[in-house]
Amino acid sequence: MPHTLHVELGERAYPILVGSGFLHDPAPLFPYLHNRRVMLVTNSTVHPLYGQALEGALKAQGVDLRTVILPDGEAHKAWESIERILAVMLTDHLDRKTIVLALGGGVIGDMAGFAAAIYQRGVDFIQIPTTLLAQVDSSVGGKTGINHALGKNMIGAFHQPLAVLSDMDTLLTLPAKELSAGLAEVIKHGLIADAAYFDWIAQNMAGLRALEADLLTHAVIRSCEIKANVVAQDERESGLRALLNFGHTFGHAIEAGMGYGAWLHGEAVGAGMVMAADLSARLGYIEIALVERIRATVAAAGLPTQGPGLGAERTIQLMLGDKKNEAGKIRFVLLKQCGHAFLTAVPEEALRATLQECHA
Amino acid sequence: MPHTLHVELGERAYPILVGSGFLHDPAPLFPYLHNRRVMLVTNSTVHPLYGQALEGALKAQGVDLRTVILPDGEAHKAWESIERILAVMLTDHLDRKTIVLALGGGVIGDMAGFAAAIYQRGVDFIQIPTTLLAQVDSSVGGKTGINHALGKNMIGAFHQPLAVLSDMDTLLTLPAKELSAGLAEVIKHGLIADAAYFDWIAQNMAGLRALEADLLTHAVIRSCEIKANVVAQDERESGLRALLNFGHTFGHAIEAGMGYGAWLHGEAVGAGMVMAADLSARLGYIEIALVERIRATVAAAGLPTQGPGLGAERTIQLMLGDKKNEAGKIRFVLLKQCGHAFLTAVPEEALRATLQECHA
Repeated sequence: MPHTLHVELGERAYPILVGSGFLHDPAPLFPYLHNRRVMLVTNSTVHPLYGQALEGALKAQGVDLRTVILPDGEAHKAWESIERILAVMLTDHLDRKTIVLALGGGVIGDMAGFAAAIYQRGVDFIQIPTTLLAQVDSSVGGKTGINHALGKNMIGAFHQPLAVLSDMDTLLTLPAKELSAGLAEVIKHGLIADAAYFDWIAQNMAGLRALEADLLTHAVIRSCEIKANVVAQDERESGLRALLNFGHTFGHAIEAGMGYGAWLHGEAVGAGMVMAADLSARLGYIEIALVERIRATVAAAGLPTQGPGLGAERTIQLMLGDKKNEAGKIRFVLLKQCGHAFLTAVPEEALRATLQECHA
Repeated sequence: MPHTLHVELGERAYPILVGSGFLHDPAPLFPYLHNRRVMLVTNSTVHPLYGQALEGALKAQGVDLRTVILPDGEAHKAWESIERILAVMLTDHLDRKTIVLALGGGVIGDMAGFAAAIYQRGVDFIQIPTTLLAQVDSSVGGKTGINHALGKNMIGAFHQPLAVLSDMDTLLTLPAKELSAGLAEVIKHGLIADAAYFDWIAQNMAGLRALEADLLTHAVIRSCEIKANVVAQDERESGLRALLNFGHTFGHAIEAGMGYGAWLHGEAVGAGMVMAADLSARLGYIEIALVERIRATVAAAGLPTQGPGLGAERTIQLMLGDKKNEAGKIRFVLLKQCGHAFLTAVPEEALRATLQECHA
């Protein structure tokens, strides 16, 4: 039986199911598909691994199903992909009761969710995340969207899924680099909300990277609990939810500066968290010892702890384009202690010092 | 002082202000613009008439303003226009507190609202409708979106405005044909919800078409009240709101069959309401005498009372592509009496008879 946890969002509340074997025996999906036409969205990497099995199992149940297989990668997280999904839905005259299944990593989840958000002003969708990053982060919270040539994730909608199904089996085929990228968000959840969880992560890093099922299951559940709790309190990111951006203001600048795709999102967040920790210590909020523990844990996860050397000026310029900034002021999520993050503006001198120290 | 009525939607509640002189003295707008950057969206017809005056008045107040002037017409209600708006917003690094002003008819309102809905997952917008149709219909209720080559209004979002400002002065420059198109929705509001209002409309049609200010103001307020009341009870069109589609299932088929733009939306709805009335009588719900009154009132508004002769088979085929249909079944909004509409499936024979009788 899968573990189930609930994201409390009133009329938009939904369950997250964490378990294994879903994709070959998708019984937990069936209650959602009754009398509804189904649009499966996946990519060319995931389709042969899990999509075909899921299609077979659904068709054996008589589900009215069609599939769009998008090219893999962040470079395709653009309007053209949304247009491909919408064209199939319109050609098949899919109605407002249609349900969209997002089978893949965060890019697929964001795009399938956005297509669901704007098709006929909104149809339901279910997330079936196949990467650790998507399981612990992007599948939870209802953020959907695409990139624009002028900025990442700039076009989108808040659209909560009907359910999230996380199958641990999918992590067995995940490249090690992408597992590490997912661990960046796991580390983040400990740092911003639960010091004991951070300790557990630091102690069990080797086992997590060796894909020990019990450890991964615990990490997915605890990370989803933390993220779900934040989202439930601040669905539309007016306050608390910003804390989930710990490491991300730096990370987004790295991703933008290097060209999207050069660094994985989780890699940029790994280095970004070290920078945010450095800045927190520099402003007197935390001890250097904690910065070093964070640096060591990020390294143990197989993630970079330094930036790519874009330079302080260029990095600040890139941050000004980040959408979390109001009217040109850059605000950062910093740590007050392990397990406690807060949002603040920072003196530009301290920021520059961190960027230089951490080779941003 | 403008009349104010409130659309009750909980945390998304907003006021509708109906008055005159707003566009030269937009004082009612100022409270909404404090410390926010502003994106004005309008079209090439409205900009010289009202946009330049509004820009001047806002800039005189020190408002940080930029304008996108889209080409006029339903043909431009497409992703390309949204992309133009988004590119300006991104180039100017507009943040999440930005407010979008939609100055124009329904097409501008739908597009500016949709751009606001998806820019950084949603920013605020204000509707400043300049056509009767937009004032009594499209500006109220939060429907936003664009057309797709495969279907009208198929891509969009529910996104409620922060406020609606309807300036009666704008109707003085409205082409008579477009005033008639707006009157189609006014007639509809009487028919589905308020028999006394329908009687008032029928009696005052000449004065409405002669742009008597008191009559127009009353019509805009009463129509907005009726629509706002329906929307407040069913924001996401799961039931009651469907009644606002009286005449629209027929109308959409006419628009699609003739090619969008050949008939104005209100013209298609005019003929569509006569068809829906004919079908209501054919199924025994209303008397022939009421059908004749509706036909006469639609004609008096300067609207067609017959279809363009697409033929019954083609019209039914076009209806199957309409998004209100679940899994292939066509449902219609019919009248039980004047002022009382309901949603029902209908026997295909009766539908065919109506389509033939009304030259659909």
